[in-house]
Amino acid sequence: MTDSQHRFDAAEREAVYRAIALRRDMRHFTPSAPLPDEQLERLLRAAHAAPSVGLMQPWRFMRLSTPAWRARLMPIVEAERQRTADALGERSAEFLRLKVEGLRDSAELLAIVLAPDDGTVFGRRTLPREMAWSSAACAVQNLWLAARAEHLGMGWVSMFDPDELSQALALPEGSAPLGLLCLGPVPDFYDQPMLEETGWRHARPLADMLMTPPDLGA
Amino acid sequence: MTDSQHRFDAAEREAVYRAIALRRDMRHFTPSAPLPDEQLERLLRAAHAAPSVGLMQPWRFMRLSTPAWRARLMPIVEAERQRTADALGERSAEFLRLKVEGLRDSAELLAIVLAPDDGTVFGRRTLPREMAWSSAACAVQNLWLAARAEHLGMGWVSMFDPDELSQALALPEGSAPLGLLCLGPVPDFYDQPMLEETGWRHARPLADMLMTPPDLGA
Repeated sequence: MTDSQHRFDAAEREAVYRAIALRRDMRHFTPSAPLPDEQLERLLRAAHAAPSVGLMQPWRFMRLSTPAWRARLMPIVEAERQRTADALGERSAEFLRLKVEGLRDSAELLAIVLAPDDGTVFGRRTLPREMAWSSAACAVQNLWLAARAEHLGMGWVSMFDPDELSQALALPEGSAPLGLLCLGPVPDFYDQPMLEETGWRHARPLADMLMTPPDLGA
Repeated sequence: MTDSQHRFDAAEREAVYRAIALRRDMRHFTPSAPLPDEQLERLLRAAHAAPSVGLMQPWRFMRLSTPAWRARLMPIVEAERQRTADALGERSAEFLRLKVEGLRDSAELLAIVLAPDDGTVFGRRTLPREMAWSSAACAVQNLWLAARAEHLGMGWVSMFDPDELSQALALPEGSAPLGLLCLGPVPDFYDQPMLEETGWRHARPLADMLMTPPDLGA
């Protein structure tokens, strides 16, 4: 590959930064037909281009966009929403007013699944599970950004009992469901993360994320 | 925000897909001066724009680019490299010929650290640790893509004993080191993932990642 193919000009660089800045975790979708197969494949190819520790590629995808699958999965998410509300105590009522998932309306509903451990040692001898999860999360982030560039919203739904969802999806032993991904056209992207817009929680500035290393001495 | 500000034209969309496709986990760097502060801040802002479960923003960054810090950290990575070689058995010698990190030469050396658990329940009642890790991994992926768009390489080094590294970095109780991030100019981006180019392992096609859901019956 030549050097010029490698480089991004100012407009291209800006496009990457814009996708990163404008991506939102969406819960409001425009009811739509399923995505064209070639568009969904393009998005999944972006996910599949993620880095993975030891090249283990632990991400798996399951398409669950049929009305029957949505009907099967919605009670699983709803049950966990109620359990979350109970666990939140005094903020329970406020929580229950929030829209926390778009399972009913999103054009597509996917599951992201962690594959059974393939025994990869490279780069994950000490943190095997964490590194597999991290790799799969990078795939989701790629999908999110590619979707944003295609003017599609995505929401990562993590409100479910993992055992119940594993059973519903008949996942093989050693697999784990990471999330249900709602994907499709949206009425509008939130200007700010929805949890900020609704006053649920305020984001902290970058400065709060920077740690000073200890003094190494002389 | 108006709709036109939201949309990506074809060239911008292509730029996002190219960053995703051309990003590599780099281990070869061009020895360079530290990055200008404003460039490093731009990259970290991209990381900080990641999604996080319940808006917990669990990522923390520590800049460790001084020669003294590199000298402190290199033996920690080297010790784990040797332990990994031992664990790999018959592929040990082959593994030891691979370059697995760029700690010495990268312009910058950062640690990505998981913050102590802040008790967020929203979206992580059932998978608290996994969701925190996933959020931090999304931040790393943003950083990786922004770096690629700026023609900088990055490598995620996960070869270390977490307790040893935690101690060296004096991390607060409940924190965990996720990775050492080598970041900076590179002589050339690998055409394919380095583990493929060296014949260590072959990547699998997207088709192998697609799972068919069980039949829901009538």
